[in-house]
Amino acid sequence: MAVERGITVKKSEDFSEWYTQVVRKAELCDYAGIKGFIVFMPYSYEIWENIKEFLDKKLKAAGHRNAYFPALIPESYLRKEADHFSGFVPEVFWVTQTGDSGLGERLAMRPTSETIVCDSYSKWIKSWRDLPVLINLWNSVFRAEITGTKPFLRTSEFLWQEGHTAHATEEEAEREVYAILEIYRQLVEEQLALPVLLGKKTKAEKFVGADYTLTMEAMMPDGKALQMGTSHFLAQNFSKPFEIKYLGKDEKDHHVWQTSWGVTTRMIGAVVMVHGDDQGLVLPPKIAPIQSVIVPIYYKDEDLRSVLAKAKEIANNLGEKGISVYLDDRTEYTPGWKFNEWEMKGVPTRIEIGPRDIAAAQVVVSRRDTGEKVKVKIASLPEDMKKMLESIQASLYAMARRQLEEKIATSKSYEQFKQTIEGKGGFVRACWCGKPECEAKIKEDTGATIRTVPLEAEEPFADCVLCGKSAQHVVYFARAY
Amino acid sequence: MAVERGITVKKSEDFSEWYTQVVRKAELCDYAGIKGFIVFMPYSYEIWENIKEFLDKKLKAAGHRNAYFPALIPESYLRKEADHFSGFVPEVFWVTQTGDSGLGERLAMRPTSETIVCDSYSKWIKSWRDLPVLINLWNSVFRAEITGTKPFLRTSEFLWQEGHTAHATEEEAEREVYAILEIYRQLVEEQLALPVLLGKKTKAEKFVGADYTLTMEAMMPDGKALQMGTSHFLAQNFSKPFEIKYLGKDEKDHHVWQTSWGVTTRMIGAVVMVHGDDQGLVLPPKIAPIQSVIVPIYYKDEDLRSVLAKAKEIANNLGEKGISVYLDDRTEYTPGWKFNEWEMKGVPTRIEIGPRDIAAAQVVVSRRDTGEKVKVKIASLPEDMKKMLESIQASLYAMARRQLEEKIATSKSYEQFKQTIEGKGGFVRACWCGKPECEAKIKEDTGATIRTVPLEAEEPFADCVLCGKSAQHVVYFARAY
Repeated sequence: MAVERGITVKKSEDFSEWYTQVVRKAELCDYAGIKGFIVFMPYSYEIWENIKEFLDKKLKAAGHRNAYFPALIPESYLRKEADHFSGFVPEVFWVTQTGDSGLGERLAMRPTSETIVCDSYSKWIKSWRDLPVLINLWNSVFRAEITGTKPFLRTSEFLWQEGHTAHATEEEAEREVYAILEIYRQLVEEQLALPVLLGKKTKAEKFVGADYTLTMEAMMPDGKALQMGTSHFLAQNFSKPFEIKYLGKDEKDHHVWQTSWGVTTRMIGAVVMVHGDDQGLVLPPKIAPIQSVIVPIYYKDEDLRSVLAKAKEIANNLGEKGISVYLDDRTEYTPGWKFNEWEMKGVPTRIEIGPRDIAAAQVVVSRRDTGEKVKVKIASLPEDMKKMLESIQASLYAMARRQLEEKIATSKSYEQFKQTIEGKGGFVRACWCGKPECEAKIKEDTGATIRTVPLEAEEPFADCVLCGKSAQHVVYFARAY
Repeated sequence: MAVERGITVKKSEDFSEWYTQVVRKAELCDYAGIKGFIVFMPYSYEIWENIKEFLDKKLKAAGHRNAYFPALIPESYLRKEADHFSGFVPEVFWVTQTGDSGLGERLAMRPTSETIVCDSYSKWIKSWRDLPVLINLWNSVFRAEITGTKPFLRTSEFLWQEGHTAHATEEEAEREVYAILEIYRQLVEEQLALPVLLGKKTKAEKFVGADYTLTMEAMMPDGKALQMGTSHFLAQNFSKPFEIKYLGKDEKDHHVWQTSWGVTTRMIGAVVMVHGDDQGLVLPPKIAPIQSVIVPIYYKDEDLRSVLAKAKEIANNLGEKGISVYLDDRTEYTPGWKFNEWEMKGVPTRIEIGPRDIAAAQVVVSRRDTGEKVKVKIASLPEDMKKMLESIQASLYAMARRQLEEKIATSKSYEQFKQTIEGKGGFVRACWCGKPECEAKIKEDTGATIRTVPLEAEEPFADCVLCGKSAQHVVYFARAY
């Protein structure tokens, strides 16, 4: 499919324009004809499939089962939990007609499925024998975003998974909330090579309807934080209005304890932002649709057949070893054109093979992340390639970790706090008295919110950065996407 | 999750009620709180996951890539192909508001994605180098069904895949239409164990917007046909209004040739109807979420530990051999209760193991389809189980094939035709002059439509069954779901 070639701005000079060009020119997505919506083109969808495969296995191994609930939710369901309703209703797409007829009750395109899931759980759960219920949904959700669309990060429809669990006890539900956060951490740090801060949201920032929300927060190169996934302890906030009760071993009725949690395709946006460079996308091998691309090189037509035959043999050998490989045997493009295309698409390694390489029983392998080129014997290529892919994965994570650490500043004074937020951005580690008023004032002054209250509480090292009263928490502030 | 136990009617006596009870009591689905919508509970979703896995691999091997397009389609897109619009508009769910604001243009919840896909293709396709485009979507679609809901067969939202391809030539597009039908046939006959008639739809029955539609038609036990999947040759019907053009090697502009095709979760309904019996569901092993359930049997508490240990060992051994096995080690239910539950859920085989079996180094294996029980040595269980599962798969297909053949009648006279349709139903093989008027009159008289015009044309054996004029085709009529 046709794209303009090459990114025309530098990542360090115009980050926003750079991002927009990368997601388009790497053919990750396209704008759809409706404001706020994008098309997930095959290349981003394949990244999503790799993310899904990893997470789906982890969730199933932990006892979760997938299901599918309707995309439409009656307005009356949304209204049952008051905070939830008021939180979501401004951005709901409403269905009001079918064919030529009006509907009695408006139907919301799901902004999230807690309410319709709870309606079913109230029918399905009768006894302690029915618990726990551990269900996960892979679907898309709809939120009418008023302000600017940003592919993957801010669109009116995005893909995600949403888990919805019901438990007999508070303790078991809380264990689930933390266990899911750990699975998410593994996904993001080990697969996407993106280091995150783990923590709890404040009351102002938690999910509408939850008792508390756990979060992972990543840092983007422009100094803004990006929420990478959340896990909510719903307590009995939904089980009471929806009357989800079970008969316990004690022969008494109890409301269940619930959790919900999700990660979305915005993670793809984070991968682009953190790992990409001036040549385009750079993909961590573990989620790359293609881990290695083979570009045959020949100048004389009589070499074509022998080079292609050897390239196919190499592709088969790599494929058998579990490496995702693509042989770019198109004759309508030059090798140089292909190099640029696959660099733009962030394929972790490229293999060049020509007549002289074949004669020497070797190929030339380039790393996308460092640009380094090495000659590798064909005999040892599968093993060497595996090691190189592991090295790229580790190196991308290490670089992102350094960038994250450089973007954490500690502030004791509000002046310094404001200077950091206005300046290089990033996380500001600061002490907070715990009052919502201080949190709100800081947001009003600076646009920064409390991204996380660390799971392992740190001892306050100063008084509240705003009011100067005794601090209760060390927290991480940032502006965020 | 709580269900009432046991089906209370016989399949042969009240087929419709039997079906409703099976899909509910086997926990395949539940009615959602919105008219026409169902919840795909984990058990049916897992069947769908198995179907997806098979089909996804086949489609990818044939060069298709997955993507995701928005669930909302502007009304103006739908209007671009006139037949398509008038065909779908009576059953569209319309979004008219977001938050508290009205929308300028109504947005349709996708009834199918041709129009929004074509909008993108018109931007993506510029040159012959960009062709073919072979994209598949896994999503759900929305059709406001006016008449009675029937889980899996007739609901307002269902899961499916929709393929959308664009080609440089008519020949290549037509080859794709037939190649997809063959992949679908393999899915349905070899995985779901459901034999089908292959053929073309008449103009009256084809997809609105297609030049022609290929179809697979299965026969249900109540004598009604069920369309199992369709593959459409769109010709240039969409590429012209959407201006999808490519610059050919001849340096001239050409409109692309297109196809679209889909199979849906209604296939699950067909599996229930054809293979199920008075005890509930019967699943073909190749799509069964659980192929073998192990029920430990012990009467004395001191046996519990040794029986469970052996059962786990067997489960691991079977799992390692690629058999999907579930050890039902719940202590709150009796073995008899478990037998009933897994029979209702159609698990192909059951393994019973107790202290005496362990002493004899054997287990008792029951087949769900025949009820047959055999003793199998633990040492040879994985191999024997594989053979048994293959035998069950083959046997279910053979039985369904016999039932299909019994339900094909040949009619030369219209009287006999009507008697058959009114009586036992099934397919009536008859000769047709090719005129839409005769087709329409037969539908009006009997409710039967032409389900397929066979791909391999048969020589007419009589004159048109209605008008008595010279026949052009031998076709298969039936009433249908």
